[in-house]
Amino acid sequence: MKTRTDCETLDKQDRLGWTRKRFVLPDNIVYLDGNSLGPLPVTALERITGAVTEDWGAGLITSWIDADWFTLPTRAGDTLAPLVGAGPGEIVFGDSTSVCLFKLASALLPHSGERKKIVTEAENFPTDIYILEGLIRLLGRNHTLVLADADQIEELIDDDTALVVLTQVNYRSGAMLNMKRVTELAKKHGAPIIWDLCHSAGAVPLDLNGDGVDYAIGCSYKYLNGGPGAPAFTYISKSKIDSFEPLLTGWHGHVRQFEFESSFEAAASIHKAMIGTPAILSLIGTMAGLATFEDVDMSDLREKSLALTNLFISLVQDRLSDYGFEIASPLEDTRRGSQVSLRHTNGYPIVQYLISRGFIGDFREPGILRFGFAPLYIRFVDVWDCVECLVETMKSGAWDKPEFTTRKAVT
Amino acid sequence: MKTRTDCETLDKQDRLGWTRKRFVLPDNIVYLDGNSLGPLPVTALERITGAVTEDWGAGLITSWIDADWFTLPTRAGDTLAPLVGAGPGEIVFGDSTSVCLFKLASALLPHSGERKKIVTEAENFPTDIYILEGLIRLLGRNHTLVLADADQIEELIDDDTALVVLTQVNYRSGAMLNMKRVTELAKKHGAPIIWDLCHSAGAVPLDLNGDGVDYAIGCSYKYLNGGPGAPAFTYISKSKIDSFEPLLTGWHGHVRQFEFESSFEAAASIHKAMIGTPAILSLIGTMAGLATFEDVDMSDLREKSLALTNLFISLVQDRLSDYGFEIASPLEDTRRGSQVSLRHTNGYPIVQYLISRGFIGDFREPGILRFGFAPLYIRFVDVWDCVECLVETMKSGAWDKPEFTTRKAVT
Repeated sequence: MKTRTDCETLDKQDRLGWTRKRFVLPDNIVYLDGNSLGPLPVTALERITGAVTEDWGAGLITSWIDADWFTLPTRAGDTLAPLVGAGPGEIVFGDSTSVCLFKLASALLPHSGERKKIVTEAENFPTDIYILEGLIRLLGRNHTLVLADADQIEELIDDDTALVVLTQVNYRSGAMLNMKRVTELAKKHGAPIIWDLCHSAGAVPLDLNGDGVDYAIGCSYKYLNGGPGAPAFTYISKSKIDSFEPLLTGWHGHVRQFEFESSFEAAASIHKAMIGTPAILSLIGTMAGLATFEDVDMSDLREKSLALTNLFISLVQDRLSDYGFEIASPLEDTRRGSQVSLRHTNGYPIVQYLISRGFIGDFREPGILRFGFAPLYIRFVDVWDCVECLVETMKSGAWDKPEFTTRKAVT
Repeated sequence: MKTRTDCETLDKQDRLGWTRKRFVLPDNIVYLDGNSLGPLPVTALERITGAVTEDWGAGLITSWIDADWFTLPTRAGDTLAPLVGAGPGEIVFGDSTSVCLFKLASALLPHSGERKKIVTEAENFPTDIYILEGLIRLLGRNHTLVLADADQIEELIDDDTALVVLTQVNYRSGAMLNMKRVTELAKKHGAPIIWDLCHSAGAVPLDLNGDGVDYAIGCSYKYLNGGPGAPAFTYISKSKIDSFEPLLTGWHGHVRQFEFESSFEAAASIHKAMIGTPAILSLIGTMAGLATFEDVDMSDLREKSLALTNLFISLVQDRLSDYGFEIASPLEDTRRGSQVSLRHTNGYPIVQYLISRGFIGDFREPGILRFGFAPLYIRFVDVWDCVECLVETMKSGAWDKPEFTTRKAVT
């Protein structure tokens, strides 16, 4: 079993130790919730202040050209591209993940002919399911939403499948699907497949081009560190850009946007996936977040991610076996993203108590404690200290007080 | 004919003169493009810096509750409400104007039965037309988009009308439709009507409740001064919130968002109009913009707006009649928003030259010079000086140089 000293040694040997200084991390906090909201990049404040005072304040309307606001959605896309195995001109930022999914799905479904099944995972992030439910009702063509268990997905994709929508890394369990294999399977059956990369982008190496992925979306506020509600991205492979026909069509997707023509004609590039005017200040946050990955080798990132999650799993197994925790994430490296989830009957108050002690994870129904291990800023000693705190928590029973057991209302 | 001294006197008597100090206005600039992007509110930098460093940086994920990010979309809505004649709980911010329009139209059209006509204005802002075109194709139910001239709108609304979508103040001409009369007409024919308030909100007094308006959308980056690409808003009247069934349905619109249920059930409030996670930093800009209207009497604002636009019109008529300008905005007060447009064969280079001289208006095809007169910060001397510069421009012919005649590419 590892000791804290071993963890200190691992930190000294860490090939990614130099990236931690790219973040503002509050004292006395171990931040294990970067899978929900990434921390503030050091450069973000300066970038955003500059955008506010110089570009908005002094440049005013001219900043759309002079401060390159017009190119920000695709510049951000091209910056993300190498992190996810995409090429230039294949990714554009703008709108929320939900809207991006609707935009892709609403463009693809009308071409599905007589096919009726839309396959997704029952445990998919709810917004993806809601978007598909709404779209099916809107179309009114008797599409059926098939909610598959993770291990049934592949057998449920067949020649009646109109569309497949899958999140590569599960938000609750951190379980990772085999993108290449499922993509090939869907294509073999002639079904388009959209990948939601919210918990993958910046968390694990991706090879969208190499895996034959044609359509993907994802947010920029989790592992990509873009700030609260930072815009999502849309990926369309080069091979599909020409044939992609958007039906959620706003003026930023028009081939001649500033001719103000009275009929829509899609741009001949990834711009066709844009809709309305993008939220510039939030996109500046996205750019700051993407910059935290500059010069990071994604295989180094994956190596450290696995070392962190495996350390956490083994420490939990070694030290917490008497306290009713189950490991809710896959134990096999190839099936796990960059988070580890535990299941516990008292998950909610335990998480609240940990947060009060400075170990910030989060809770998801039912009974899931989530711990995100973002390799750019999480240290091996952080993993040790978190488990140490969990052990103390369970020994003392300190979580069992009204201040921790009472649910906080969020709206 | 007025003189510059008369204009100085008008500024001294201006009941809204005290609001100009709420804005950062660069020296040597007369900013007549607030109808495209409002200027920076003085408080915006501090608000945004606080949101970045304290809420995102120090508060991290806890700020969704502790910094009230969750309530920001409706707090912004309730702040806007009194400016547009709406009540609390009728407006929510989030997404772009285009997406908000799609969200409303896609929810309303499926209830249109056998009705086929969707009536909009031929001169409507293109994105509204594109959104309707795309939605019609998506639904595939033979709806017809009727592009009406402004003076034909009312006769084209009939019992075959499935939906009416109108922008109250035209982006190009500044012409204002009679919201109350057209709303009553549409309702008499049983057709829902969506008003686009992009060029109205913060520009003219509105009485959404009093005029019987049920559905409206609008952006916050023009007269509302929310910053580049700041989120749009959706208004649904109290009387329609219960029956409104969204079909662009994301997790922020769910009645129990954090139960992560696998089927959508809409919130029983304006929250049902939310989709994905809102762009928080851009929304903080919206809040700063809305705060520039604090304690402003909208009838004072309208009075000053009309005084400014009438002054501009009369000076143009008096001083520029020999130079080929036509006034492209209505001359009747009741039919004009807070902008005046001129038409001129050489509109593009003339605008570029004016900008080089510090008078920032903008150009829209075909041949339209737009001048926005936002009463919160535009002075009567600004109007005088702009016309003076226009007179000099035309006398000297200084606009006729390649640096002004050459079109700038925007993407």
